[in-house]
Amino acid sequence: MTVDPVIELEMQCRRAKLASRKLAYTGIAAKNSALENIAADLLSQKETILEANAIDQLEARKIGMAPAMLDRLALTPYTIDLIAADVRSVGGLPDPIGEIFDMRTLSNGLTLGKKRVPLGVIAAIYESRPNVTVDITALCLKAGNAVILRGGKETINSNRALVKIIIGALERAGIDPNVVQFIDNTDRSLVPHLLKMNDRIDLVIPRGGTGLIKFVKENSTIPVVAGGAGVCHTFVDASARIDRAVAIVYNAKVQKPSACNALDTILVHREIAAAFLPKAAAELANTGVELHCDPRSMAILGSQPELKLVSAVDEDWGKEFLALTAAVKVVDSLDEALDHIAAYGDGHSEAIITEDYSNAQRFLNEVDAAAVYVNSSTRFTDGAQFGLGAEVGISTQKMHARGPLGLKEITSYKWLVYGSGQTRP
Amino acid sequence: MTVDPVIELEMQCRRAKLASRKLAYTGIAAKNSALENIAADLLSQKETILEANAIDQLEARKIGMAPAMLDRLALTPYTIDLIAADVRSVGGLPDPIGEIFDMRTLSNGLTLGKKRVPLGVIAAIYESRPNVTVDITALCLKAGNAVILRGGKETINSNRALVKIIIGALERAGIDPNVVQFIDNTDRSLVPHLLKMNDRIDLVIPRGGTGLIKFVKENSTIPVVAGGAGVCHTFVDASARIDRAVAIVYNAKVQKPSACNALDTILVHREIAAAFLPKAAAELANTGVELHCDPRSMAILGSQPELKLVSAVDEDWGKEFLALTAAVKVVDSLDEALDHIAAYGDGHSEAIITEDYSNAQRFLNEVDAAAVYVNSSTRFTDGAQFGLGAEVGISTQKMHARGPLGLKEITSYKWLVYGSGQTRP
Repeated sequence: MTVDPVIELEMQCRRAKLASRKLAYTGIAAKNSALENIAADLLSQKETILEANAIDQLEARKIGMAPAMLDRLALTPYTIDLIAADVRSVGGLPDPIGEIFDMRTLSNGLTLGKKRVPLGVIAAIYESRPNVTVDITALCLKAGNAVILRGGKETINSNRALVKIIIGALERAGIDPNVVQFIDNTDRSLVPHLLKMNDRIDLVIPRGGTGLIKFVKENSTIPVVAGGAGVCHTFVDASARIDRAVAIVYNAKVQKPSACNALDTILVHREIAAAFLPKAAAELANTGVELHCDPRSMAILGSQPELKLVSAVDEDWGKEFLALTAAVKVVDSLDEALDHIAAYGDGHSEAIITEDYSNAQRFLNEVDAAAVYVNSSTRFTDGAQFGLGAEVGISTQKMHARGPLGLKEITSYKWLVYGSGQTRP
Repeated sequence: MTVDPVIELEMQCRRAKLASRKLAYTGIAAKNSALENIAADLLSQKETILEANAIDQLEARKIGMAPAMLDRLALTPYTIDLIAADVRSVGGLPDPIGEIFDMRTLSNGLTLGKKRVPLGVIAAIYESRPNVTVDITALCLKAGNAVILRGGKETINSNRALVKIIIGALERAGIDPNVVQFIDNTDRSLVPHLLKMNDRIDLVIPRGGTGLIKFVKENSTIPVVAGGAGVCHTFVDASARIDRAVAIVYNAKVQKPSACNALDTILVHREIAAAFLPKAAAELANTGVELHCDPRSMAILGSQPELKLVSAVDEDWGKEFLALTAAVKVVDSLDEALDHIAAYGDGHSEAIITEDYSNAQRFLNEVDAAAVYVNSSTRFTDGAQFGLGAEVGISTQKMHARGPLGLKEITSYKWLVYGSGQTRP
């Protein structure tokens, strides 16, 4: 007798919700012990994981998976070491749960405040990276949340091996293994059902391409926190120090072009364009960056034969390149830069390079983005770089949490009210 | 030539988004001056408002609207005074915007922290209460948010008059009136379109019945904060002081039975049931409360002829009565009470009446609700009562904000990063 997959899914969500009740007030010792068990077992059972992963790789090659995807899918002894080290590092972070804040006594004698508690049950929907299985489980567990894992079908064998290890590690730490529910069914038609279980699931985190994120946002009745794209501008103001501006623009574009916080568009004030652009472009050309130039920047750079220049088209503004490509535009004023960012930015990371105090303040005030920088590379928008320890993702929405999501950002709070017989008049 | 209503709606959302940019950094003086103008104009244009409201009332009577609905719809000189006073009281609250917090300097010299900013654009979808038009506008404005108003068709004339006053008041305060967009079209088929405008709208607040809230949650691609029902339990523990327990239970049930934080179910420990229940039931009977009793409480109370008793059915557990009715159940232990609350509560407000320290602590730790009380009436779950000044609603979800939503809860933050040339290694 087979169970209807939708009913099986509902049962899994119910088990997660039930198990999350106790996990919510499980102490840090048990949670850390589970994390240490996971790390140790990943290392001691490397061969089992690699065998399972080899099957996934074989299948992926058969269906002609693209090299970049294959790369994400592949585990090696070294990457398993890294995953285990990440789990241990989560274990070393302070417990986000239990903090009491905003506590005060009202005139009627009620003492009340907020206590940080887990969100409850988090569903993660992700694609072909098996490391996400361990990574998101470790973060959810540390913050006291049950997790429902729905990975891509390409990594089903790797995920099964990893989840088996996680379950064993939880049991040895005395934590109900129902706090981790792995959806061992890669039928895509189940996902819309999962996204409607708002009675059992408190948050959905989609991790993957823009298609997945869009699908989840449009079909979920559960709150979603999703990062998505990052179209990042750096505005080089008239008063910028040119050496600093060149170094920052170069770093923001080149240090990791595939990152969502990498530079996409350089905006430069017309008064400094002729001095700044040739130096910046020469530096960027050393790493093979292609520049998509508006007419004014093309007029300045067009005579440098070593550069890779293309005339910008409308689609270049507001485009996330994720490659060694940047759009360049000369603007007449800070206002024009602010308008351009408002029109084309998507609220991720934006920077101004300036020595002008008032312009720096205006930029910080008026740009509406998760992170707004003065005289710095935008590459710092990251949980670890911002000092949050770990990162579940980066939110470009304004609800709940904005920017890097650390452990605290996958928690909620409840109001505690200590009375002595109070009734409402 | 008529404009397609969907395109007109899109244009309104776009205008709101655009106008929200400047409102986000508009100072408190202009915002408060707009609020004062609104309050003054409501008072000076009372006659115009009442005339418009009279037309709505006439229409409503024609279609045979129920008296309770008619009551919500009706404005009087006195209710307009109250609305104006509420606007002035919002004006008197501190500005929630601009607070800087969690600021620190990292080892690389970057100084970073968070600045409280408005959410951006909030859409309010509500039913037949015209006061919501002013109320939600005042709160959004104070927190720097543009607002899109979609009221019920029953109040269209009142809403038009109120919005006209608001627009004039904004203009006199030098604030772009586009920050308030009134959808002057009550065709219900427009609502699903509105709920898909996640590029222009940051938050949707549905205010109305559970049907409206369910519809919005299921159809919105925009984050939703909705309260909804409140099934509230009060558990009278074995060690409770009986006088205190009686007073609290009475207050929680009777002080305002139609409120979402009113008591629905009394759980009572078997050791105290025979002493507590007759006293509590007698008190509740003075106000005509009907009790739906489980067999054990019925055995205790059944011989009191002055009581209104009914045998409880399964549907009574987890039911929000919104009336002078309460369910009563005798439980064997704190654990049974906790399990009952976990099974039937919906995360609003839950209370324990006890003199036992450990049981109080367990209740506070283990109950998962927006507000958890010891020895107090649950009727205090309210923005004003909790000291938040004003209230947009009460959230029973865990994302973003939980419990009463004050001005701070309709804000977000952005990361400010002050650099001096930092690049990422």
